[in-house]
Amino acid sequence: MIPRYCPEPFAELWSPAAKYATWLDVELAACTAMEHPEAALVPPGTAARLRGACLRLDPARIDAIERTVKHDIIAFLTHVEELGGPEARWLHFGLTSSDVLDTSFALLLGRAAGLLAERLDRLIAALARRAQEHAATPMIGRSHGMHAEPIAFGLALAGHLMECKRGRARLRAAREEIAVGKLSGAVGTHAHLSPAIEARALASLGLRPETAATQVVARDRHAAFFAALGLLAAGVERLAVNVRGWQRSEVGEVAEGFGAGQKGSSAMPHKRNPIASENLCGLARLVRGALGPALENVALWHERDISHSSVERAIAPDATTLLGYMLERAAELVTGLEVFPERMRQNIEASAGRCFSEAVLLQLVRAGLGRQQAYAIVQRAALAPPGMGQDFRARLGADPEVAALLAPADLDRCFDLAHALRHVPALVSRALAAE
Amino acid sequence: MIPRYCPEPFAELWSPAAKYATWLDVELAACTAMEHPEAALVPPGTAARLRGACLRLDPARIDAIERTVKHDIIAFLTHVEELGGPEARWLHFGLTSSDVLDTSFALLLGRAAGLLAERLDRLIAALARRAQEHAATPMIGRSHGMHAEPIAFGLALAGHLMECKRGRARLRAAREEIAVGKLSGAVGTHAHLSPAIEARALASLGLRPETAATQVVARDRHAAFFAALGLLAAGVERLAVNVRGWQRSEVGEVAEGFGAGQKGSSAMPHKRNPIASENLCGLARLVRGALGPALENVALWHERDISHSSVERAIAPDATTLLGYMLERAAELVTGLEVFPERMRQNIEASAGRCFSEAVLLQLVRAGLGRQQAYAIVQRAALAPPGMGQDFRARLGADPEVAALLAPADLDRCFDLAHALRHVPALVSRALAAE
Amino acid sequence: MIPRYCPEPFAELWSPAAKYATWLDVELAACTAMEHPEAALVPPGTAARLRGACLRLDPARIDAIERTVKHDIIAFLTHVEELGGPEARWLHFGLTSSDVLDTSFALLLGRAAGLLAERLDRLIAALARRAQEHAATPMIGRSHGMHAEPIAFGLALAGHLMECKRGRARLRAAREEIAVGKLSGAVGTHAHLSPAIEARALASLGLRPETAATQVVARDRHAAFFAALGLLAAGVERLAVNVRGWQRSEVGEVAEGFGAGQKGSSAMPHKRNPIASENLCGLARLVRGALGPALENVALWHERDISHSSVERAIAPDATTLLGYMLERAAELVTGLEVFPERMRQNIEASAGRCFSEAVLLQLVRAGLGRQQAYAIVQRAALAPPGMGQDFRARLGADPEVAALLAPADLDRCFDLAHALRHVPALVSRALAAE
Amino acid sequence: MIPRYCPEPFAELWSPAAKYATWLDVELAACTAMEHPEAALVPPGTAARLRGACLRLDPARIDAIERTVKHDIIAFLTHVEELGGPEARWLHFGLTSSDVLDTSFALLLGRAAGLLAERLDRLIAALARRAQEHAATPMIGRSHGMHAEPIAFGLALAGHLMECKRGRARLRAAREEIAVGKLSGAVGTHAHLSPAIEARALASLGLRPETAATQVVARDRHAAFFAALGLLAAGVERLAVNVRGWQRSEVGEVAEGFGAGQKGSSAMPHKRNPIASENLCGLARLVRGALGPALENVALWHERDISHSSVERAIAPDATTLLGYMLERAAELVTGLEVFPERMRQNIEASAGRCFSEAVLLQLVRAGLGRQQAYAIVQRAALAPPGMGQDFRARLGADPEVAALLAPADLDRCFDLAHALRHVPALVSRALAAE
Repeated sequence: MIPRYCPEPFAELWSPAAKYATWLDVELAACTAMEHPEAALVPPGTAARLRGACLRLDPARIDAIERTVKHDIIAFLTHVEELGGPEARWLHFGLTSSDVLDTSFALLLGRAAGLLAERLDRLIAALARRAQEHAATPMIGRSHGMHAEPIAFGLALAGHLMECKRGRARLRAAREEIAVGKLSGAVGTHAHLSPAIEARALASLGLRPETAATQVVARDRHAAFFAALGLLAAGVERLAVNVRGWQRSEVGEVAEGFGAGQKGSSAMPHKRNPIASENLCGLARLVRGALGPALENVALWHERDISHSSVERAIAPDATTLLGYMLERAAELVTGLEVFPERMRQNIEASAGRCFSEAVLLQLVRAGLGRQQAYAIVQRAALAPPGMGQDFRARLGADPEVAALLAPADLDRCFDLAHALRHVPALVSRALAAE
Repeated sequence: MIPRYCPEPFAELWSPAAKYATWLDVELAACTAMEHPEAALVPPGTAARLRGACLRLDPARIDAIERTVKHDIIAFLTHVEELGGPEARWLHFGLTSSDVLDTSFALLLGRAAGLLAERLDRLIAALARRAQEHAATPMIGRSHGMHAEPIAFGLALAGHLMECKRGRARLRAAREEIAVGKLSGAVGTHAHLSPAIEARALASLGLRPETAATQVVARDRHAAFFAALGLLAAGVERLAVNVRGWQRSEVGEVAEGFGAGQKGSSAMPHKRNPIASENLCGLARLVRGALGPALENVALWHERDISHSSVERAIAPDATTLLGYMLERAAELVTGLEVFPERMRQNIEASAGRCFSEAVLLQLVRAGLGRQQAYAIVQRAALAPPGMGQDFRARLGADPEVAALLAPADLDRCFDLAHALRHVPALVSRALAAE
Repeated sequence: MIPRYCPEPFAELWSPAAKYATWLDVELAACTAMEHPEAALVPPGTAARLRGACLRLDPARIDAIERTVKHDIIAFLTHVEELGGPEARWLHFGLTSSDVLDTSFALLLGRAAGLLAERLDRLIAALARRAQEHAATPMIGRSHGMHAEPIAFGLALAGHLMECKRGRARLRAAREEIAVGKLSGAVGTHAHLSPAIEARALASLGLRPETAATQVVARDRHAAFFAALGLLAAGVERLAVNVRGWQRSEVGEVAEGFGAGQKGSSAMPHKRNPIASENLCGLARLVRGALGPALENVALWHERDISHSSVERAIAPDATTLLGYMLERAAELVTGLEVFPERMRQNIEASAGRCFSEAVLLQLVRAGLGRQQAYAIVQRAALAPPGMGQDFRARLGADPEVAALLAPADLDRCFDLAHALRHVPALVSRALAAE
Repeated sequence: MIPRYCPEPFAELWSPAAKYATWLDVELAACTAMEHPEAALVPPGTAARLRGACLRLDPARIDAIERTVKHDIIAFLTHVEELGGPEARWLHFGLTSSDVLDTSFALLLGRAAGLLAERLDRLIAALARRAQEHAATPMIGRSHGMHAEPIAFGLALAGHLMECKRGRARLRAAREEIAVGKLSGAVGTHAHLSPAIEARALASLGLRPETAATQVVARDRHAAFFAALGLLAAGVERLAVNVRGWQRSEVGEVAEGFGAGQKGSSAMPHKRNPIASENLCGLARLVRGALGPALENVALWHERDISHSSVERAIAPDATTLLGYMLERAAELVTGLEVFPERMRQNIEASAGRCFSEAVLLQLVRAGLGRQQAYAIVQRAALAPPGMGQDFRARLGADPEVAALLAPADLDRCFDLAHALRHVPALVSRALAAE
C-alpha cells in the first residue's frame, strides 16, 4: 500500500489495529455461541467480560510476542490473556488459527468490497450524468484508431457505464462468494465444536459457514474475488485508454481537468497531459496482476499449507486499495472532463464524408449491385492518402457507375449525420435504465 | 490445440467448417429478421434460398480469397456470393464484420461452455460417489504437509466436490455473460439496421443484444468467461496436487489407476506414477495463463481495435479444449482412484496419538489451566524428532502437571478417533446435497 | 500453433516427424559414445546400423503404441525395436526418458532460436534502413500522447532498433542457457553411464552437460529462454503501438502498406487500418503470456515431476512460432511503412511554436529569472484549449516580463527547429553502429 | 512493502529520503558537468554551493508542494529553490523530469541489486556448505513424488546451488542492463544539453548513457531486470517445495529449524511445520507476479506515457524487498536445516530394492534380452500395491527367465548402493567449483 494511492478508509481498514479488532470480534462471536445454553461450553457472560477487558489491544505488544512464538494468532491470544486474565482461556476454545484468520478475512474483504461498491457507484453516477449530457453530441467513431462512422460521445460513455454496471454485478457476486467463515477447527471436522455453534457465531457476524472446509475456507472463493477486481480495473483502464486517445494533441476532443497551479512537465511549460488516465492504466496492471498469485493460492496442499498467507498479506490490501483509488480518480476524471463538441464536429468533417461510405455502399446494393462490386466502387473513391483529402463526395458524384444507379439526391441522403445517429439517444437511455 | 489434449467434440467445435457454418447462421438470422414485414428491408425468402445455395461452404476457397483481401469476413462473403449469386448481396446488409464475428463467438463459446458443463457434471458425479463411499474412511488430516488431526477421506473429496460445484455456478454465470450478440453495425449506432431487427435476429439464435455496443461486444464479458475457466482449472489442480501428495511412496494412501501394459518409466520398471495428476497441474497453468491476455484484451481503443482477435484465436479454442480435457481426465482419475484405507489407518497411528494433542489441550483448559500453560505442557510431550516417536501418550501420563488435572480415563477419552469424526458423515451429506 | 500465424519452418520444426528424428539423434549419439573404446559398453557399429534401419520412423505407429503403454518415449523405443531388431536393445541403455526428451528439447529450442535470430536480424536491418533514411525527418515528439518537442522520425526508429538489438543479445544469452543436455540417467547420478560418455555424446550434438542434473535439465533455463522471447515480443509491441498512434486519422504521419485488392472493413469501404500493428499487439500478449506458466514450471518436485511437460508441449511451439511470425510481420511492416514527412511538418506547426516552450524557459533562466518564475510566465502564454491556438509566440512577445529580459531576436532564436535537432543525426548514427 | 517481509536496508533504500537524496545527486552531477570548461553553461562552484545548501531536504515539505503542482519533480525543485536560493535556477537546466527520475531509478535499482547480490551470495555459501557436508549422504531420489533410484542429499543441494549460481549470473547481467541513465532532455534529442555533458555526468554516477533514448530509458531494460528477479524467486521456490516434500510427516528426512518457544499451531501443540518454506513459496508468487506488469510497461506511447510510473512505484520496492527477504530466509533455512540421514536410509530400504530395478533391467539387456522383454520381466516382479511390499529381490530370484540369464551373484550386484552413487561426490565437487 503506497500512501500516494491509498484513500484513508482503506488505510484504516487494513491497519494492524483493525485486524486485531476483527480477530477479537471473531473470537468473541465464537465464545458467545459457546455460552449459548444449547452448547453450554463456556460460562455465561465470559465474552462480555473479555470484550470489556480487551478494549485496548496493543499491536506493538502483539508484534513483540510474535517475535518469540513466530505465530501471529498465538501472539494475539497471549496478549489477550495478559489483558483478560484466566477467563481468556475460553477464547479460541476448539478453534484453530485459520478459523479466526479466515473468518476475519471474510469480514475485512467484505468491508473492502463495501468501500469499493460506494466508489463504483460514484463512478457509475458520473458516467451516467455525462452520458446523458452528451447523448446527442456527435463524435467520429473510430475503429483501429481510424475514422469509422459517427457516434455520439454519450454513446461511448454509455458503453463504459454498462461495463461498470457489469463490474458492479460481478463485485456483488464476488462479495457473496467470500462472505463465508469457518469455525470447524483444525481440519474442518468440528471435532471440538459442533456445526451449530459455528452457524450461530457466523450468523452473528453476517457470514455463512464454509460447506465443506479443510483447515481453511477454500481459496477459489478469494481468487474469484480478485478476478472481479481485475475485471473492474480492466474496465476502468479501457475508459482511461479512450480518454488518452481523445485528448491526444491532434484529436483534442476532451481534456482532463487541470488544476490552478498544476504543471504538466518540469521541462516544457506548454504541457497539459492526461496523467490521471495514464495513472489509471498503470494501476490497472497492478490490480490485474494480483490475479495470478491469487489463482496460484488455490491449490493448497491437503487440509492447507500456509503459502497463501504471504500472498494475501500483500494482494488483499494492495489490490483493494489501488482499485479504490482508481475508482475515486476515475469518477473525478469523468466529472471534471472537459469536452469540446466543436472539435469533435471538425474531426468528423475532416474525412470529407468518408465516414458515410457504408451508406453509399448500401444504397448501391439496394439499387441492385453486388456487394463486392459496390464495395470496389466506393473504395476507389474513398481511398486516399492518410489525412484523407477533400474530394470523396465529389469523386462519387463523378463516377459513372454510381451516377447510373443513384440520383444526386439519393447520394446526398447518404451523408446525413442526423439520420446516422437517430437511434443513439434511445441507446443511451437504455443504458441509463439498465441495472 | 494439441491433438494429445483435444477431445473430439472440441476439435469439431473449433474447426474452420464449424466457424464458417456459424457465420452463415448469423448472416441468415440477420437476413431473416430483415425480411420480417416490420423491417421489409430484404425480399421474403432470401435467407431460405441462400441457406440452400450455401449448404457446402468450402473453407479452402475462403482461405484462398483471404490471401488477397486480407480480411476473413470479406473472404467468406465473397465465397457466399460465388455460391448464392446476386441475392447474396443482401447478406451482411448493414452489418459490420464484428457483428458476425462476435455473435458467432457467443454461439461457439456458448457451445464450448455446454461441453464443459457436461464434463464438469461427470466430474461432480464422480466426486460425489467417492465422497459418499469414503464418508467414514479415517485418514490423517494434514496441514503444512504434516500430520494434524484425523479427517475422513470422503470429507477431503467433499471439499473438492464443493469447489467443483462453485465452479459450475461460475461457469453458468459466465456463460450468461457471453450469451450476447450484436447486429448494431460498424460503430454500434444502428445507423443502418434498427434495434428491433437486431433483437429479433439474436433471439432466434438464443442471444441477447449488447446493451451499449461499440463495434464489438465488450471484452470484459469474455475476460470474465476466461476467469471462470481459470478458476475451474485451479480447482482441478488442487485435487491433482492432493492426489500427488497422497500417492507419494511414503504416504501410499491412494494410487491412480494403472492400465494393463502401462509403463511408468522408460528406465525404471518398478515405477508407477501419478501422471494424470501431474498432467492436470501442468494444464492448469495453461488454462490459468489464458486469463492475462484475456484481461489485456478488454481495453480496446475507442470503438475497437483488432488486437483482441489474434489472442482469441488462440485462447478460446486452447483454454476451452484443455479444460475440457482436464475435466474428462479428472473424472477418470477420481473414478479409477485406488484407495487404501488400511494404509490410511497406519499413517494415523504412526504419530502415536499426537494427532489428538488438541483434545488434551482443551481438556486441560476445561480443567482450569490457562491456554498457553496447557499448550506448553502438551507441546513438551509431543515434540519429538520428525517421524515422531512412540511415546506421546505415555509422556503425558507421566507428566505430574497433567496427572494433577486429568485422571487416566479422562486422558484416554482424548484419543478417541470415532469421537473426533462424529460430525463428518453429516458434513459429507451436506456437501452432497448442496447445489 | 495456429496455421494463420505459423511460418513454414516453424511448422516443420515442431512436427512429430522432427521430434522423433531428434529423439533418434540423441539415442544414437549416446549409443555412439557407448561404443567408444574408453566406454566399450556397446558393440562397435551398432549406432550406424540402427541409423540405417530407422531411416523411416512412422509417427502414426508410435502414437498407436503409446495408446497402450501411455509413455511416449517407450512407444518410440518399441517402434525402434520393431525396425532395428535385437540390436535396438542397446538404445536407451542406461538412459531415462528425460535424457532423451530434454536433450532433444535443447536441440529443438536451439533451432527455434536460430529461426528467430534470422528473423530478428531482418527486422533489425529494416529498422536500420528506415532510421537512416529518416535521420533528419522532423516529427513532433510526443509525451503522454501530447506534443512535446521535435524529434526526427529516424530517432524514434533508432530507439526501436536499439531495443531489438538488446533483444538480440538476450536471445543469444538465452540460447546459451538452454544449450544443455543430460545423459546422466534416472536421477542424474550417472549410476549406469559415466560423465565421460555424457560429455562425448552431448559434444557431438553441440551441447554442454547440465552441471548438476536431477532427472531433468533445470527448468529455470527454459523459463529464462521464454523471458527472452517475452521481452522481444514486448519490444515489437512497442513499435506496433507507436505505428498505431502515428497512423491515427488525425495524426496521419505513417501508414501501413495496403495491398492491391485489400479491404479494410466489411462495412466501410473507406477504411484502411493499421491491422498488422494491432495484430502484433495481440500476439505480444500471447508470447508474454507464456512466461507465467514457464516460471511455474521451475519448481518441479524433487528429482522432477511431469507437470512441466504439458506446458512445454504448448508454449514451446506456440511462443517461438508466434514470435517468429511477429518478427517476420514486423520486418514487413517497417519495410513497407509509408511515411508522410509533409504531414509530420504540419503537425509540428500545429502547436504554433509551443513545442519550443522549454527553449524560452531556459533563455529566461539564463537571463537570471528563477526557474519556477520563468515557468509560470511561459506556461501562462502557452496554455490554451486543446488543439492549441495560434498565438503562443505573439503572447510571449507581448508579455512585459519577457520583453524586459529577452530581445525579440533572442526570443526568435528559441524557435529554431534545426538547432533543436542538431544532435539527432549523430544519435541515429550511434544507434546504427552499436552492437 | 510489508514490514514483516522488509529487511532494514531495503526499507532505507526505498524511503522518500533516499529518493530525494538520489534526485539531488543526479541534478548535481548534471550541474557539475555543465560547469565543466568544455560546456561552461553554469558558473563554476554552483553545484558545490547547492550541495551545501540542500543538505537537509524535507520530504514532508516536498509532499506539500506536490499537492498543488501535482508533479513530484517540480515539487522537489521548488523545495530546492527554497533552500538554495537564486542559484538553484541552474538545477534541472535543460533536463526533463525523466532525466532525473530514470537516472535515479538506475542508481536505486542498482543498489537494490547490490543488496540482493550480497544475500544471494550468502545463500550460495550456505548451499555449498550443506552440499559438501552431504555429498555422500544417501537419499532416495524421487520422480513424480515416487521412489526412483538413490541419490545423495548433497547432490540435490548441488542442483539448487547451481540454480542459484545461474540466478547470480542473470542478476549481474540484469544489473548491467539497467545501469543506464539519460540526461538528453525532454524527448531524448539533446536539444539543450550535449551528449558530452550527459556522458560526463553519468560517468560520475557510474552509469552509461541510453543509446537512443526517448523521454525515458527504455523499459525493456527494467522488464529484463524483473525477469531476473522472478527467475531467482522461482529457484528459491523450487528449494522450498523440496524442503516441504522432505519434511512431510511420512518422509521425515529434514526439518526446518524450530526456535525455543516457537509454536507450530494455535490449536495443535504437536505441530512443527515447514513454515519458512511455505512462506517462500507464497513470496515467490508475488515476485514472479511483478513480471507481468513490468512487461506491460514496455510499450509506452511514443516518447513515453506515464503509465509505467505507478507500476514501478509498487513493483520496484516490493519485488526487490520481497526477494531480499526471501534470500535471507532461504539462507537461514538451509543453514538451520536439520537433516536425518538415518531416516533417509530407512526410506531407501522401504522399497525392498525396487530402486535398483533399472540395474536389473540393464543386466538382462546385457545378457541379450530385448529391452521391452526385460522390462516386462522386471516390472512384473516390481509392481505391487503402493507402499511396496518386501519381496522384489526374492521374486526376481524365483523368476525362471531371470534365473536363466543371471546368476544369483550377478543379480546381487545390481543392488549395490555404493556402486550406484560412485560418481556423485565428483558431481557435487563439480558444482562447488563451477562459477
